[in-house]
Amino acid sequence: MNPIKTHAIFKYAVFLVFFTTNCIQKPQEAEQAVPATQSPIDPQVAATIKSFFDEALSDRACYLMLEELCKDVGPRLSGSKGAEAAVAWAKKKMEDEGFDEVYLQEVMVPHWERGKEEEAHIVLEDGKKETLSFLTVGGSVPTPAGGITAEVIEVQSIDELAALGQENIRGKIVFFNQPFDQRNISQMASYGATVRQRTQGAIEAASYGAVASVIRSLSSSFDDVPHTGTMSYKSGLDSIPHAALGVKSAELLSKRLKAGSVTLHMKINSRIYPDARSHNVIGVLKGSEFPQEIITIGGHLDSWDVGEGAHDDGAGCVHALGVLRLFKKLGIKPKRTIRAVMFMNEENGLKGGIKYAENARDEKENHLVAIESDAGGFSPRGFGVTASDEQLEKVRSWLPYFNPNTIAFINKGGGGADIRPLYDVQGTPTIGLLTEGQRMFDYHHSANDVFEHVHPRELELGTASLTALVYLIDQNGF
Amino acid sequence: MNPIKTHAIFKYAVFLVFFTTNCIQKPQEAEQAVPATQSPIDPQVAATIKSFFDEALSDRACYLMLEELCKDVGPRLSGSKGAEAAVAWAKKKMEDEGFDEVYLQEVMVPHWERGKEEEAHIVLEDGKKETLSFLTVGGSVPTPAGGITAEVIEVQSIDELAALGQENIRGKIVFFNQPFDQRNISQMASYGATVRQRTQGAIEAASYGAVASVIRSLSSSFDDVPHTGTMSYKSGLDSIPHAALGVKSAELLSKRLKAGSVTLHMKINSRIYPDARSHNVIGVLKGSEFPQEIITIGGHLDSWDVGEGAHDDGAGCVHALGVLRLFKKLGIKPKRTIRAVMFMNEENGLKGGIKYAENARDEKENHLVAIESDAGGFSPRGFGVTASDEQLEKVRSWLPYFNPNTIAFINKGGGGADIRPLYDVQGTPTIGLLTEGQRMFDYHHSANDVFEHVHPRELELGTASLTALVYLIDQNGF
Repeated sequence: MNPIKTHAIFKYAVFLVFFTTNCIQKPQEAEQAVPATQSPIDPQVAATIKSFFDEALSDRACYLMLEELCKDVGPRLSGSKGAEAAVAWAKKKMEDEGFDEVYLQEVMVPHWERGKEEEAHIVLEDGKKETLSFLTVGGSVPTPAGGITAEVIEVQSIDELAALGQENIRGKIVFFNQPFDQRNISQMASYGATVRQRTQGAIEAASYGAVASVIRSLSSSFDDVPHTGTMSYKSGLDSIPHAALGVKSAELLSKRLKAGSVTLHMKINSRIYPDARSHNVIGVLKGSEFPQEIITIGGHLDSWDVGEGAHDDGAGCVHALGVLRLFKKLGIKPKRTIRAVMFMNEENGLKGGIKYAENARDEKENHLVAIESDAGGFSPRGFGVTASDEQLEKVRSWLPYFNPNTIAFINKGGGGADIRPLYDVQGTPTIGLLTEGQRMFDYHHSANDVFEHVHPRELELGTASLTALVYLIDQNGF
Repeated sequence: MNPIKTHAIFKYAVFLVFFTTNCIQKPQEAEQAVPATQSPIDPQVAATIKSFFDEALSDRACYLMLEELCKDVGPRLSGSKGAEAAVAWAKKKMEDEGFDEVYLQEVMVPHWERGKEEEAHIVLEDGKKETLSFLTVGGSVPTPAGGITAEVIEVQSIDELAALGQENIRGKIVFFNQPFDQRNISQMASYGATVRQRTQGAIEAASYGAVASVIRSLSSSFDDVPHTGTMSYKSGLDSIPHAALGVKSAELLSKRLKAGSVTLHMKINSRIYPDARSHNVIGVLKGSEFPQEIITIGGHLDSWDVGEGAHDDGAGCVHALGVLRLFKKLGIKPKRTIRAVMFMNEENGLKGGIKYAENARDEKENHLVAIESDAGGFSPRGFGVTASDEQLEKVRSWLPYFNPNTIAFINKGGGGADIRPLYDVQGTPTIGLLTEGQRMFDYHHSANDVFEHVHPRELELGTASLTALVYLIDQNGF
């Protein structure tokens, strides 16, 4: 037989392509690079874990729940009507699923509103204007009613302000234009390296006498959609208006500045209201053997006021809901108590996470571990673990239960903003879901963080991976 | 200090999120689960590999090349004008990059054209019609000029035909409605399990006397965009028209069939032309120490005639181009000869891959390894390796050079359709890039396989990962 006959080749094509990227379904058959000293796999545990994946991928329940949260509830910044609708939605969802207990945990949260008709433009010499893509940073004070018009001074980092000094900054609008470093494999690192221009920029600019500040959006994309987020002011310093420009607009402004001085007009109509009453939403499956040992799995229910909070953090909410749902649907009674917690106010105050930790301390709760999904509804890649070395090794020993196209590595260090207070108060170990996050900062805190940018299979692989982790902890202790 | 003071918490939030999903940039610092016996890392090699990632992620050259291939050239089925434009584009691109040698390798390829105005509808009793989303499978014969109108019989698999027998099938249109199994973590497995209804469906249906056949598209999505692909006929049997329905249309047809008998009208205006002259496009960097040892890295230049062949396999083409480009740009002179090969006719004949292998045999070329990227321009996850156990272990020993958010596992078995003939002829080891492929079969062979569905960072991580692999093989031999 001629091995390169066309007919045979057709079959090779199909077979080879199949062979090339097929990843096995049964974890025990996994062909992957794992330590030679890896733990033996318990076939029954593997079968249970496979059932989590089968179920999540088949019924796409979390994806459909996320659609409701994004499309029926929508944006849900703390203190807004959307946030209260989200609390009601989450509580009803948990009740409908028939969890052993569903309750609200009251928490006072900040209430800031953007207001309407915010805008910015470059004032051109002929009286015309060049409009910029502009979005007020969350928590910013408004401009005076007529807006602010001032000359712009550009810096690439906060550190440059000191070199320029008050004489060059006073009365101007500071423009922080540090871009994302595309070389970082994790764009979370790029976010970390630039986030201070958003969180601290208004403080630093004001300390040199600036009248306002604008930032290049913290974005990995090259589009012109601006990204918001939280910020701080400092008592004793002027609170100045602070906003973000789309990346293209930032580049345009920078280009104009290279040609000469630029006057910017910006208008913000934001308002800070008194703190509002809101809630964490908690659903419980009671442990059958060790009910006092609590495993928390959570995401945050609040989102920024643009977009739909699909990846940040609707995905984490439906993940948490989905974990308990899978236990119930598959008739698995946990030995330990599992709580799905939808935290309120992660984005601009963390009041829900703090309340949950304070309550745990006051009630002397025994939290075995707290897990958070707040890295978007993308394909799961690993877990980040803040725990003892023994606990870390324990999680690593479970790696063979996962298909390498789901969970492929376990990092030292990780958790989530909402569960960090529990670590601080009780030393509770924390675990965060790590995702295939190359697209995260294209959408994060922007109008692009919508349901359409979540892929059903990627989201549900996260649900199943988290359910497997919770199951392994529940079965083995931690 | 109160550890849960709000001000501190803001910083925790930023820090924690950073910490949680940050993956280090320097491979030598990687926190990952790797064998305790892992090979030591050479810091210089690690630095070179980091430079591949830095460069690819910064300049996005492959992404911009892919835009040209998708938007300026477009679809490029073998024998079409698009395919010839693609050959010219690829040759010029390689020449512009200044590779040591650029040449074409002539190959005769099939030439099939869809024709215009293909359509299908359910014939309703009142003379009205219900139009279905419909796409002829590549290679199908046309219907008679007036189309075919016949009763439909649905099966879930080819095996069901035997049970039905000729008496139930003769004169009808067979409807193969096997869906993707969403439970498979790799949708490549789902593709493999259903692909026979496309490749063999017309043969099997004809063998029972059917007048035509339609299939449910081989798709992981739930939309109504139909997917094409290749198919076979068998001499001695009627060649009957064969086409794909969008998933929603397939479900509609199935629903109508549950209510009673259904008559379908379908019209196809395809045409088979004489074989056409076309080319593989080959660019070379000459080895400085072992020029006779050849490392081939390839993708296929042809695509289906709908969409833009962005993931399948424009991505693989710019990956191959990008590997040589990075060597040149960074001034790395390879010890061995590296060839970027853009194969012609993977989709419906594999004539380019066969020609390349025949030529290698005739010229007694020494191929060290052949690598293919044909799993889409998604984030890289691993490599599949068809080689000796020693060679497999060698590749696995390189795992620590990769950030786990890029290459996290090495599978036994893998390659690509275009390089399989080289394995058959010479026993050349083959390696295929494995990707985060949850979205692949939403787009594959459909009008949705367009540039807009490729993410720049995901694509470029593939470029850099492949360059690192080629570099490691070049430096260490294989």
